[in-house]
Amino acid sequence: MASSDKPSRRGKHRARRSVKPVGAAPGTLIIDASWPAPRIDVIGYGPDESWTGADLKVSDLAALKGKWPVLWVNVSGLGDEAVLRQIAREFGLHRLALEDVVTVHQRAKLEPFGNQLFMVARMMDVAGMTSEQLSLFLIDGVVLTFQERLGDCFDRIRERISHGQGIVRSSGADYLAYALLDSTIDSYFPILESIGLLLSDLEDEVLENPEKSTAEKIHETKRELIALRRNIWPHRELLSGLDREASGLLQPETRVHIRDVYDHTIQIIDLVESYREVSSDLMGLYLSSVSNRMNEVMKVLTIFATIFMPLGFIAGVYGMNFDPGVSRWNMPELGWTFGYPFALGLMAGSAGLLLYVLWRKGWLG
Amino acid sequence: MASSDKPSRRGKHRARRSVKPVGAAPGTLIIDASWPAPRIDVIGYGPDESWTGADLKVSDLAALKGKWPVLWVNVSGLGDEAVLRQIAREFGLHRLALEDVVTVHQRAKLEPFGNQLFMVARMMDVAGMTSEQLSLFLIDGVVLTFQERLGDCFDRIRERISHGQGIVRSSGADYLAYALLDSTIDSYFPILESIGLLLSDLEDEVLENPEKSTAEKIHETKRELIALRRNIWPHRELLSGLDREASGLLQPETRVHIRDVYDHTIQIIDLVESYREVSSDLMGLYLSSVSNRMNEVMKVLTIFATIFMPLGFIAGVYGMNFDPGVSRWNMPELGWTFGYPFALGLMAGSAGLLLYVLWRKGWLG
Amino acid sequence: MASSDKPSRRGKHRARRSVKPVGAAPGTLIIDASWPAPRIDVIGYGPDESWTGADLKVSDLAALKGKWPVLWVNVSGLGDEAVLRQIAREFGLHRLALEDVVTVHQRAKLEPFGNQLFMVARMMDVAGMTSEQLSLFLIDGVVLTFQERLGDCFDRIRERISHGQGIVRSSGADYLAYALLDSTIDSYFPILESIGLLLSDLEDEVLENPEKSTAEKIHETKRELIALRRNIWPHRELLSGLDREASGLLQPETRVHIRDVYDHTIQIIDLVESYREVSSDLMGLYLSSVSNRMNEVMKVLTIFATIFMPLGFIAGVYGMNFDPGVSRWNMPELGWTFGYPFALGLMAGSAGLLLYVLWRKGWLG
Amino acid sequence: MASSDKPSRRGKHRARRSVKPVGAAPGTLIIDASWPAPRIDVIGYGPDESWTGADLKVSDLAALKGKWPVLWVNVSGLGDEAVLRQIAREFGLHRLALEDVVTVHQRAKLEPFGNQLFMVARMMDVAGMTSEQLSLFLIDGVVLTFQERLGDCFDRIRERISHGQGIVRSSGADYLAYALLDSTIDSYFPILESIGLLLSDLEDEVLENPEKSTAEKIHETKRELIALRRNIWPHRELLSGLDREASGLLQPETRVHIRDVYDHTIQIIDLVESYREVSSDLMGLYLSSVSNRMNEVMKVLTIFATIFMPLGFIAGVYGMNFDPGVSRWNMPELGWTFGYPFALGLMAGSAGLLLYVLWRKGWLG
Amino acid sequence: MASSDKPSRRGKHRARRSVKPVGAAPGTLIIDASWPAPRIDVIGYGPDESWTGADLKVSDLAALKGKWPVLWVNVSGLGDEAVLRQIAREFGLHRLALEDVVTVHQRAKLEPFGNQLFMVARMMDVAGMTSEQLSLFLIDGVVLTFQERLGDCFDRIRERISHGQGIVRSSGADYLAYALLDSTIDSYFPILESIGLLLSDLEDEVLENPEKSTAEKIHETKRELIALRRNIWPHRELLSGLDREASGLLQPETRVHIRDVYDHTIQIIDLVESYREVSSDLMGLYLSSVSNRMNEVMKVLTIFATIFMPLGFIAGVYGMNFDPGVSRWNMPELGWTFGYPFALGLMAGSAGLLLYVLWRKGWLG
Repeated sequence: MASSDKPSRRGKHRARRSVKPVGAAPGTLIIDASWPAPRIDVIGYGPDESWTGADLKVSDLAALKGKWPVLWVNVSGLGDEAVLRQIAREFGLHRLALEDVVTVHQRAKLEPFGNQLFMVARMMDVAGMTSEQLSLFLIDGVVLTFQERLGDCFDRIRERISHGQGIVRSSGADYLAYALLDSTIDSYFPILESIGLLLSDLEDEVLENPEKSTAEKIHETKRELIALRRNIWPHRELLSGLDREASGLLQPETRVHIRDVYDHTIQIIDLVESYREVSSDLMGLYLSSVSNRMNEVMKVLTIFATIFMPLGFIAGVYGMNFDPGVSRWNMPELGWTFGYPFALGLMAGSAGLLLYVLWRKGWLG
Repeated sequence: MASSDKPSRRGKHRARRSVKPVGAAPGTLIIDASWPAPRIDVIGYGPDESWTGADLKVSDLAALKGKWPVLWVNVSGLGDEAVLRQIAREFGLHRLALEDVVTVHQRAKLEPFGNQLFMVARMMDVAGMTSEQLSLFLIDGVVLTFQERLGDCFDRIRERISHGQGIVRSSGADYLAYALLDSTIDSYFPILESIGLLLSDLEDEVLENPEKSTAEKIHETKRELIALRRNIWPHRELLSGLDREASGLLQPETRVHIRDVYDHTIQIIDLVESYREVSSDLMGLYLSSVSNRMNEVMKVLTIFATIFMPLGFIAGVYGMNFDPGVSRWNMPELGWTFGYPFALGLMAGSAGLLLYVLWRKGWLG
Repeated sequence: MASSDKPSRRGKHRARRSVKPVGAAPGTLIIDASWPAPRIDVIGYGPDESWTGADLKVSDLAALKGKWPVLWVNVSGLGDEAVLRQIAREFGLHRLALEDVVTVHQRAKLEPFGNQLFMVARMMDVAGMTSEQLSLFLIDGVVLTFQERLGDCFDRIRERISHGQGIVRSSGADYLAYALLDSTIDSYFPILESIGLLLSDLEDEVLENPEKSTAEKIHETKRELIALRRNIWPHRELLSGLDREASGLLQPETRVHIRDVYDHTIQIIDLVESYREVSSDLMGLYLSSVSNRMNEVMKVLTIFATIFMPLGFIAGVYGMNFDPGVSRWNMPELGWTFGYPFALGLMAGSAGLLLYVLWRKGWLG
Repeated sequence: MASSDKPSRRGKHRARRSVKPVGAAPGTLIIDASWPAPRIDVIGYGPDESWTGADLKVSDLAALKGKWPVLWVNVSGLGDEAVLRQIAREFGLHRLALEDVVTVHQRAKLEPFGNQLFMVARMMDVAGMTSEQLSLFLIDGVVLTFQERLGDCFDRIRERISHGQGIVRSSGADYLAYALLDSTIDSYFPILESIGLLLSDLEDEVLENPEKSTAEKIHETKRELIALRRNIWPHRELLSGLDREASGLLQPETRVHIRDVYDHTIQIIDLVESYREVSSDLMGLYLSSVSNRMNEVMKVLTIFATIFMPLGFIAGVYGMNFDPGVSRWNMPELGWTFGYPFALGLMAGSAGLLLYVLWRKGWLG
Repeated sequence: MASSDKPSRRGKHRARRSVKPVGAAPGTLIIDASWPAPRIDVIGYGPDESWTGADLKVSDLAALKGKWPVLWVNVSGLGDEAVLRQIAREFGLHRLALEDVVTVHQRAKLEPFGNQLFMVARMMDVAGMTSEQLSLFLIDGVVLTFQERLGDCFDRIRERISHGQGIVRSSGADYLAYALLDSTIDSYFPILESIGLLLSDLEDEVLENPEKSTAEKIHETKRELIALRRNIWPHRELLSGLDREASGLLQPETRVHIRDVYDHTIQIIDLVESYREVSSDLMGLYLSSVSNRMNEVMKVLTIFATIFMPLGFIAGVYGMNFDPGVSRWNMPELGWTFGYPFALGLMAGSAGLLLYVLWRKGWLG
């Protein structure tokens, strides 16, 4: 947090601790001052009609209950404890469930509270790889959802309700809960698709032009996949728990749909695991690529040194100053008619021989 | 997809997301415009006869039901929503099952819908390492299969039916379903066989002549094995689920056969896991091989430098221009009768000594 | 232990053996002479009142039992066998349980002894990454806790009791036990948060300026995470065991809270595992970074050698002493009018050519 | 298979696919032309007598059934479909079981067929690390075994039967089946023993004299262990299944023996896993050893370069041809009385200083 | 075994095969000639008295049975088949159990034989990291133990019995069995403690002065931990089996103690796993340390080469023999008044520039 220029990376490693101070009473709501104020949107619908109420007050809710077969109360923003407590009172939410609603770094889970089913799921936001907590209460005829902020992946569901598409209008609140979970799980696919494309690009980069930044990008991808896995994995238990849940809140038909979402979750988990392996292998390929490069560099150095050191040595010998005049043993070559060509020939021969040896070793190609 | 020259690699990493937009109603059929139109082929048979109808219309199907003890309706190509919906109506398929049929990147699974058993399996296509989704409905006396395109691994089954080979003609629809699953699982063996051969070749390559491309090939193989594992693994659950399935659609005799296919699946999974380990080890061997090569290169460089640097130094010393005329301390060697031979001897001695030391260190062999 | 300057690191690897000599009778209490003497603090409370007794004597305890609906007896320090045995007698503790209390390196566990529930948990101390054993007996109306030393993470619970905040005063002893376990588990979050920040910093360090010490810090972090995992993991069984425990000591309402603590434990385990993977990947990134650096160093060396060896060779050739006077073949260049500029040009050309080749190879950027 | 010089290595990676073509009817027997013809050996025995019939005809078998309390029919070689089918008819074998008999790359498994127990196990052949399939039918009073070829690890059992050693003669067919499985599992121990010795040798080699071939040998060992694990692992299920099998074919006393074989299997699996870890660690040690070597080579190079480059430079300086006659600034050293000794001293001093620095750095030994 | 100088290392990798030849009859006792002869020691005790009989004969045992509430017969050494068979007859041991007693490389296990409980456990011997098999029969009122040789970790138990310490005298044979298992498990702690200290030392070594031998020591430690894990792991099943065992031989009170030993076993397993991870990480740290060293060596080489190659080149240029007398273009510097200082200045400038660049790159610190 100290260095303001890297908030995203730094933020990713933060322990998603419950913001509750150690030892605080359970049921205490710790509201972060920066959170947006709650906005209550309601959709009520039945087979034949649907009604949308935007930005309502808590006091409006009591009158809406029971007016339609299904009532969806969506609260976006958790920034006002009083409002949240009023809503909780209105729908008889359990104290601990409400605490979970504002503890926004929960794992996905299913918790039955009396005749209510409380679920926590995590939606992915494509831009920026961040996840948002969706808290969902399935009550008789009512689905109550809490989101951290405005904006979600449920617009198509709203459309389907208002236009009466599909079977949503003729189904119960359990079907709506299923549809919301389905959209939540589906929000992981675009992320995975972009990671898949990124891995393809990184593979090309590793094979064709590995840079230092390539390793960083692979590492970044692995870290995102680790975070993604931590987010998606608990949905498996949530959904299999929901399938087994004996509660009368769930119709048999809905269970078929839930198993379908469960299958999607497994598919996402499979993909995340595959991608993690691919990115690990990619790091290995990168390292082998770096080693190969060093080999190449070393080879160039060795070839040059191997060839020029003997040449330099020969030149050095004939640069010695022994006096040929003193005796005929002292560097008679210096006085030869073809002394210089002889020396050059010696050099050419030595270089040629070495080049041949290196070529035979396969170092020159 | 952007770079058209590497479609195969790029394609492999794509997240096999359901093509359904996030939040679309379950039961929506998203048909890819590029898919081939459905072609309906029917085989009806009983102990004594068999009938083959090629490229039928949907309207022909109603009359065929019940005419033979077993009716196999095979639909190749999923490119026409209307046709698919008609078939679904004809055989009373569940809305969600039909959605699964056109969501062609499903994991293998078993889903009972009322008195029908719906299965998804994945066939491998030898050429190109691609997989194709087989959707199979086991209905009383009817097996209804959907494939993504024409061409499959079932030709021998068709022959066995038309020639009355084996027990297929005298068995029920459940046996046909088993036979199709058996062929599907068997389609993984040729792939594994070719990967096994490739690994052998790569091993030879790593040991004898490791190139940069060797690492790429190992990486490629690992990635294919990761994809293969993702494809084959869920068949395990499919088949063990089928064995446990209480449905009256399955004869006890068929369950014996299903356990046999299950065993094949486990065998494939075992092989895939073994191959993955072998290819990981191969990457390790490759890295050690690259390191060894660098060692060799370094040794050559060091040997040359170690020998020629002292020689060059000696030559350099006697190339100094101190004036022997000024004093008898100044390079008297230059005036010795055997000065030059002495210098050459010094060089030969130094080189010999160093060669001996290097030979003792074992660097020269 | 021999080198007194590194006690902390050395201490971390010590096998947390039971200090009991091999073969000692079970039930033997081995008291370390360095442990602080026990200090007994008592809080008694009911819905309407609370009473705090600090630094009591064992003999005071008998009179306090039954005076309040809930009695919390907290013993800090285990350094006096006689006192511990008196307390054990007073509350009817099992011989083996008392042994576990003083064997301060136990894993977290749950052990029912008759109508008592005995739990061992491990609290983390933020400063210094050390853990402390909390032994907790849940008896009818009494919670008896033993800590290794003064100072814990329960001050807020004490406040909540004395100020009557939350529901603690109106709940039973089981709720108090839950609250203590909750605080214990919560004590892991600050540690994880600091490790998360450290990992972010290490990541920056690896990417920007990897030092030898970076590897040490990563290794240190991994080791801490291994220890942390060993500490937190068994709480999972403790808490799931507590949830399943049929004992009448636990109210249904408390079980809901216990599942909540269980969720936190899973969340911590998830984080620890994620951090372990991140730190492993970081080590890999560090190694790739070190390799990249070596590549860079090698490249500089190779560039210099590649350019200067030919230059030096040319200079060496024209430093040879062949006598141009003897024949016109002997180094006629020395007598050319533009011999020197020719040699310099040769050098410049050779250097330019090599620079061009290296630039084309991409080594100069 | 293409390169005939490496059949063994190439063969090891082959996918052990069922030789059955994809889509062939179940129950089809695919006989490899190279397989040896079946040879039928029979041993009949009871508490008081035993009879051995070698190389019998199928037609002889009918008369032998029921003559002794236990009849062991052993068929070596699977190269004649007609004979196999006759035997199958004689003993009422299931169609699928017979197919499994000739599909010689099955995993170990247990399959009950009516009142018969069918087992597949894999024997190891010490020489050459190959495995052979043993198919065993336990029928009332009869044990029918099929092996791929002559030669097995059952000779001691034959001796015990014919000499009446141990309790085999007084026990039933289930005891014989147990004894055969026991020998089969025991056939893994010599292989493991030789791998254990090989690992010790490799460890010595890595520590004392790591060659390129050392890495190859470690890799080979790992691959063999991977194959071994794939062979042994399914016996675990086979034997635990046999222990749980409710069939009346198994006496309680025999189950005790089967648990004993099960224990041996677990012991083998443990060893294989340990050896795999040891060989992985060995590869790591090898890599560190290679790195250490490179360090050593680099150090030698650096020491020589560090010392001789300054020396060469000094020599080069005094080899320059500036004319001392032109000015007193031009290389006055050349005219000094002790110019040459001064230069040599400069060199010796520089070399000495550098040697001292290197020695202080610990690079010189 | 061939090289007598490394028996310990070589011995460690040997497959602990049952010494029984493949196919030998179960119940065959294979006695190694090198084993010590059995020595029988007996302790009989009850609440009020205890009696010790040292080095008894087998024939003495019959008279001792039933004389005391608990009789502990301890047999040290397995080198006499006749004696072992007599003991087995005396106490009605199962044939297979006796075979297990002399098969001294068994995994820990629990096997009920009629009204006897047979256990195999493995004691660690601190000096030398070897393990010894303890075979324990719990019979009504009798504990019969077999050890491979004299000397064990039970002396304190003997003392407690003879001095009447703790509750052992007033408890039954099941408590004695528990006490022996407890001591056996406790014998692992000193080993782990010494490995923990060794890891601390190795860590210091890796960080401060990594030698080639450091890698060997880490590898050795890992191998010991692999062996240790193989030894300790099965005790987990043994003890949990004992806790679940319905046999009337075990008092409820003893089960509490057994769960305590079980906890210790889990704690040891946890530690072994942690140490294995730490030692793996240590190997990684070692490799990074070796790489860092190579980097350092390379840097020194590169710095020297980078600085001296240009200097040498300049000296070489002015060592060329172009004749200044021929033309004014030929090396006029040689005749300059300040030619030599100019050349030296050129060298100093070049060296200074390069040093500055290297310093900026951070290579000089």
